[in-house]
Amino acid sequence: MGDYIVDEAGNGAVAAASPPNQRGNAERQQSPNPNPDLTGHKLLILTPFDLPTGWADAARARYPGLTIEHNRHNPWVGSGGPPEDVDWSDVTVLMTGPVLPSPRDAPRLQLVQLQSAGANYVLEHPLFKDTKVAFCTANGVHGPQIAEWVIMTYLAFQHRLPHYLDKQKECHWDRDSHDMDTLDTVHQRMNLVHSGILGYGSIGRQVARVATAMGAEVYAYTAHPRPTPESRRDNAYYVPGLGDPEGVLPTRWFSGTSEADVNEFLASGLDLLVLAVPLTPQTRGMLGQAQFKVLAEAAEKTEEGAKRKRGKTYVVNVGRGPVVETGALMEALDEGWIRGAALDVTDPEPLPREHPLWRKPNLIVTPHVSGNSTHYIDRLMAIVDINLERLSKGERFINQVNKKQGY
Amino acid sequence: MGDYIVDEAGNGAVAAASPPNQRGNAERQQSPNPNPDLTGHKLLILTPFDLPTGWADAARARYPGLTIEHNRHNPWVGSGGPPEDVDWSDVTVLMTGPVLPSPRDAPRLQLVQLQSAGANYVLEHPLFKDTKVAFCTANGVHGPQIAEWVIMTYLAFQHRLPHYLDKQKECHWDRDSHDMDTLDTVHQRMNLVHSGILGYGSIGRQVARVATAMGAEVYAYTAHPRPTPESRRDNAYYVPGLGDPEGVLPTRWFSGTSEADVNEFLASGLDLLVLAVPLTPQTRGMLGQAQFKVLAEAAEKTEEGAKRKRGKTYVVNVGRGPVVETGALMEALDEGWIRGAALDVTDPEPLPREHPLWRKPNLIVTPHVSGNSTHYIDRLMAIVDINLERLSKGERFINQVNKKQGY
Repeated sequence: MGDYIVDEAGNGAVAAASPPNQRGNAERQQSPNPNPDLTGHKLLILTPFDLPTGWADAARARYPGLTIEHNRHNPWVGSGGPPEDVDWSDVTVLMTGPVLPSPRDAPRLQLVQLQSAGANYVLEHPLFKDTKVAFCTANGVHGPQIAEWVIMTYLAFQHRLPHYLDKQKECHWDRDSHDMDTLDTVHQRMNLVHSGILGYGSIGRQVARVATAMGAEVYAYTAHPRPTPESRRDNAYYVPGLGDPEGVLPTRWFSGTSEADVNEFLASGLDLLVLAVPLTPQTRGMLGQAQFKVLAEAAEKTEEGAKRKRGKTYVVNVGRGPVVETGALMEALDEGWIRGAALDVTDPEPLPREHPLWRKPNLIVTPHVSGNSTHYIDRLMAIVDINLERLSKGERFINQVNKKQGY
Repeated sequence: MGDYIVDEAGNGAVAAASPPNQRGNAERQQSPNPNPDLTGHKLLILTPFDLPTGWADAARARYPGLTIEHNRHNPWVGSGGPPEDVDWSDVTVLMTGPVLPSPRDAPRLQLVQLQSAGANYVLEHPLFKDTKVAFCTANGVHGPQIAEWVIMTYLAFQHRLPHYLDKQKECHWDRDSHDMDTLDTVHQRMNLVHSGILGYGSIGRQVARVATAMGAEVYAYTAHPRPTPESRRDNAYYVPGLGDPEGVLPTRWFSGTSEADVNEFLASGLDLLVLAVPLTPQTRGMLGQAQFKVLAEAAEKTEEGAKRKRGKTYVVNVGRGPVVETGALMEALDEGWIRGAALDVTDPEPLPREHPLWRKPNLIVTPHVSGNSTHYIDRLMAIVDINLERLSKGERFINQVNKKQGY
């Protein structure tokens, strides 16, 4: 969880909506003809979970030509390959995880709907590499709950919740120890707080929505420049009513892939820095000692920072652990270069008991749980609904993986 | 902190903007004539805090006729009465707390700007009772940070932050113990979560703003019916850009002062219940055993509630402790009639070490700190700015206390 597409999401190819035939894999996806009833299509769902009540009936009613089969094989468990009781020969749409058929076994397959936001585990599979089968991710299903986790940890730090939970255990009404100097909540500096969001995808956009509702200002950082309204739009799936699909919330946009670009963003006076980028060669170690020093220097330049002699930025990582150099982070916490940090992902992960990171000051660590949600399957099936509709209309799929970029 | 006006806030009398004279107290506030320069006015500020940088200079530039004096006497400390070094005779506007002059000593006084959201401590003072001097509160300065506290505690409970903080102390990456059944975040049921806000003032309105940004639905409960757009408006001070000043966010409105009215609201299927009412004879003990049973019965009627066999509603009290019967709350937590609770106010308060409430399950207690903010004085001076402007224009004051109702 936590991985998602920063850029280019949803720029999928045109869906092949014509009745599937026995053309070779290389020719699939070529006929964007509407097929309103999805005649001749078969959807196979591999998941141990119950489908949402009524989902299959509704889909059958909408597409009288569609066959739906739900196999409770867990596509995440076991490396023994696909379940043996499946006849792939007429499957055109497959919802799965790492379990995939060979191209030969599934000659009519057109669309693979993954149950994860990332597609890293399919990149070497021949069905992905050697065919034109479209692969779509679950990008967007994690945004709301991970954004909640970001807001929760920041508020918990600013309102000193860990301290008061300890006092509660001691049955101690600790009214007098509060430190006014720590009381910089998101809101309390509403026109001053700058929430920098590194990676403006489904998580970052929902963080922006909530932070804005609390009075914070939002700066966005993306790999590619977003100079136009069109370029700021997010074409990936998002939960209706949430996020910032049009990209209208940030007051400043930063971009680039070089260290200098990142440093410029980090020097912009951030009170909250949210890391919500996937792990790629470009993002690995993106936040190292030099970057923490940039944050520290930016803090010292402010009147308040000079007075308080400590860091200004609270760093939250919900992307992938290796995006942050753990050693540099520990130094930054020890030296007070940053105000504090919250990590739902670490490097290494899982974090071993003996690792010194656990006990660093001003740090909250949770074990990669921010993306958990009871509504995962509901949202996943909402994505399937969208892609079935697009298949029936011959339109581009949502959340389709770019085969060159691998995400 | 935490107290505020539920209804009727800001319906102040017309400000007396004419040059102050030696008329008797009973005649003050009678001449709504503009006085753009505030000629003849003197503002005395009693507070130990620094004023915001540049505030006094800006006010003097705006009102050339206004004299401003800042006395660092703490108006909250000491019962020895007003400081002896103050000449009250020409003071027309006073910013203070419980420290007040006698009507005779301050014959030209027209406006008292209190530094608290409540006015309960002035109700028996002759300056309040026996004169027409306008009293205005700091209503609205607490909304943003207390709303943050409400959202923080709810998310902390739903995302099991106290559990993970304990595991962090044990250096234990506890990835596997998560309980999917507890994962009902605000968002995860975005179209199902009903946030009931009992008391729709500055706190409740900002909770509504943030909860809405997270995808929750908001039900509002007020003492008086709010059938029209005009009646839903909040005329009290609010931090610009925040809250719900027009009252457009709730999808349902409930009202009334009887137990039956309250019970009807509580039976509406609330996942989150926020108590943000002041303590009055009507609100004392508003949530007793019968009300917790209403919440339990409403939960049992839902499919999920019947399955989980436990309460559905998370109860948050940021009003005043005695609004909730502590014994009934403890029973509700023990019996699972509610999902959990967060209290920043308790009864008794402070909560003694030996009190059993401290150790109840699914409870977060903090020692009446949710209203703390480094921006308190900034916002307070913003209210003074508004009231000086209204004084200069002969308009109604903001946040004026209704002398009959006492708030």
